[in-house]
Amino acid sequence: MFSEKMVSLGKKRSVIREIFEYGNVRKSQIGADNVFDFSLGNPSIPAPDEVNRTMSELIKNKPSVELHGYTSAQGDAGVRKAIADDINKRFSAGARPELIYMTCGAAASLAITLNALIVEGDEVILLAPFFPEYTVFAEKAGAAVKTVKCREADFQIDFEALGGIICAKTKAIIINSPNNPSGAVLSAETITKLSELLTEKSREFGSEIYIIADEPYRELVYGGIEVPYIPDFYKNTVVCYSFSKSLSLPGERIGYIFVSPDASGCEDLYAAVCGAGRALGYVCAPSLLQYTIKEVLGKTSDISVYDKNRNLLYSALTEYGYTAVRPDGAFYLFVKSPEKDANAFCERAKKYEILIVPGDDFGYEGYVRISYCVSTEMIKKALPGFKKLIEEYR
Amino acid sequence: MFSEKMVSLGKKRSVIREIFEYGNVRKSQIGADNVFDFSLGNPSIPAPDEVNRTMSELIKNKPSVELHGYTSAQGDAGVRKAIADDINKRFSAGARPELIYMTCGAAASLAITLNALIVEGDEVILLAPFFPEYTVFAEKAGAAVKTVKCREADFQIDFEALGGIICAKTKAIIINSPNNPSGAVLSAETITKLSELLTEKSREFGSEIYIIADEPYRELVYGGIEVPYIPDFYKNTVVCYSFSKSLSLPGERIGYIFVSPDASGCEDLYAAVCGAGRALGYVCAPSLLQYTIKEVLGKTSDISVYDKNRNLLYSALTEYGYTAVRPDGAFYLFVKSPEKDANAFCERAKKYEILIVPGDDFGYEGYVRISYCVSTEMIKKALPGFKKLIEEYR
Repeated sequence: MFSEKMVSLGKKRSVIREIFEYGNVRKSQIGADNVFDFSLGNPSIPAPDEVNRTMSELIKNKPSVELHGYTSAQGDAGVRKAIADDINKRFSAGARPELIYMTCGAAASLAITLNALIVEGDEVILLAPFFPEYTVFAEKAGAAVKTVKCREADFQIDFEALGGIICAKTKAIIINSPNNPSGAVLSAETITKLSELLTEKSREFGSEIYIIADEPYRELVYGGIEVPYIPDFYKNTVVCYSFSKSLSLPGERIGYIFVSPDASGCEDLYAAVCGAGRALGYVCAPSLLQYTIKEVLGKTSDISVYDKNRNLLYSALTEYGYTAVRPDGAFYLFVKSPEKDANAFCERAKKYEILIVPGDDFGYEGYVRISYCVSTEMIKKALPGFKKLIEEYR
Repeated sequence: MFSEKMVSLGKKRSVIREIFEYGNVRKSQIGADNVFDFSLGNPSIPAPDEVNRTMSELIKNKPSVELHGYTSAQGDAGVRKAIADDINKRFSAGARPELIYMTCGAAASLAITLNALIVEGDEVILLAPFFPEYTVFAEKAGAAVKTVKCREADFQIDFEALGGIICAKTKAIIINSPNNPSGAVLSAETITKLSELLTEKSREFGSEIYIIADEPYRELVYGGIEVPYIPDFYKNTVVCYSFSKSLSLPGERIGYIFVSPDASGCEDLYAAVCGAGRALGYVCAPSLLQYTIKEVLGKTSDISVYDKNRNLLYSALTEYGYTAVRPDGAFYLFVKSPEKDANAFCERAKKYEILIVPGDDFGYEGYVRISYCVSTEMIKKALPGFKKLIEEYR
């Protein structure tokens, strides 16, 4: 009677959500301090002071009808100019306000971009491990999804495998660097090779292949690492950005789409973005948040906490005998399961009140995701459990 | 190369937007005070003080990680409970928090509901005059759109015409009362008859027909009129609500969907709403706005200004010889064009710097929409022009 697909999407909780809900029940049984919940990617550090200060000032000083009124559908012109300027200060992509479209966060950016790009018969490629909702957005936009695994050694792209699945139907590939769940940052070398491969394949098939760069974790990198800006490497790029993680504002839903001026048909593509936003019911991104963002561009939450957690967790777990690639960004550690079935491993972890997520839903079996956007205290308390857990496999 | 439909949607400005942009150019030429822009439905009165006060307090007192963190996808449980309680205080619909889904405003509510309801081959009926975006949302969700005109005498439903177009494919009918652009409020008698007709047709075709009640203007009514609550009359109802107009917050994007507990398959339908929200990229409604709304339920902006404008404009225009049905709600006056072609009439109005919108886009030719969510001062200054304008037709 209703859309079966939508009913089942609505009923089927994600595995992450299941584990999180289990954790809530467990916390009520044995006390919140005794449950070590590493399941969610919810920022654990406050927004920078400038965010709340700016919001309060806007509420106090900007007339209500302006502050809370509709902005243009693409977003306030001043906000878009500030974002374009910020991009151009940092990268050579040549951003222009008229190619920026403000959105309700990264999920909206992705859904809108996919609905703009996809026509019947198109395929979208995902690089595993990937954020599970990519499949949902791509399929709803009408695309068939193909996946290809990244190299286990460093979670960079496996070009042989990727080259093998690109075909005439390939419309887009979603890149997420820093990556959820692996924490890997794709290197300049990787992006260069990717750009070459896509250019070659476009020529071979007489088609245009777009990179959708999902960048909510761009500012969350450690050890002075640089995240290559994909529009600086490859012309057919659409950047889907969000301030959720960098400013600890995931509930406020604010981000943007930036269509590279070098992209084939960039004006039509931008128009399609506007059209898709309209058709999906996005009238404008929340106005107070738009005006706030404008004043805090370049700021981030105090991510040194995540860096500290990363070092603590990575050092301890590898010392205990776990295998993991040291993450350069985001706030996840992707750890090889000591048994083949990562689901069974996650079940066993519950014995020590440790809640972690199997990689299966991320398209990468035999691994688990450990979110370290939690308190350092909790990590410390959980470490003995992690130690006993791996000792069970000796 | 991209979705043609999305490109053309993005490029084609709405007629309303075209007129508004023309107004901006004209204002820069002759001064803002000399242009009488009645084109937009943008609230002209500030949000009630409680809104900004609540926001400021939340920013000051609620921990950042909670205030700006993800809520559950359906919306914060406490917010949904407060909304259900508020509905139950006013109506007998038996609202429950688990049938409320918080959204980014009415457009999101409608897009999500349509994507939840529609399966291939379904038709959606619109009652003209109607908000033009209904067609965009319904078609994107995969529905075919049929329209039927309301009665010219009072803009109530023409049941003979409606009965003639309902068929086995009819999945939903969108009701917008108070109506944009006519200002009409559907009477209890009309809703009762509609309920009977839909029940009879459902039986005839062995199908379920849903009412989608688009209610952003529910609180904007004048002269003590009551707006019947459709779930109290008809079981298969989904209410799409928004706080944009009642609280003058259109830029902030906050509203909700309420699935009637009496609707056939209400649990599956709610699941489909959750699934559609997810697939369209709506992660959650803006968190600060959710928490704010909870504290100001039942409040509205000072709508006496709109009432004053309504009386002033209606009295003056009818005195000058215009024909219009006195609006009971919303903030629009729907006036019969003195010549057959409303577009030509709107062009002629520009001579007097009066910007009004032809009814054609609302599916109702020969009429124009005059938005009175403007300053009373502007209406007064525009009246001599309205007078001269109709005198041209003597």
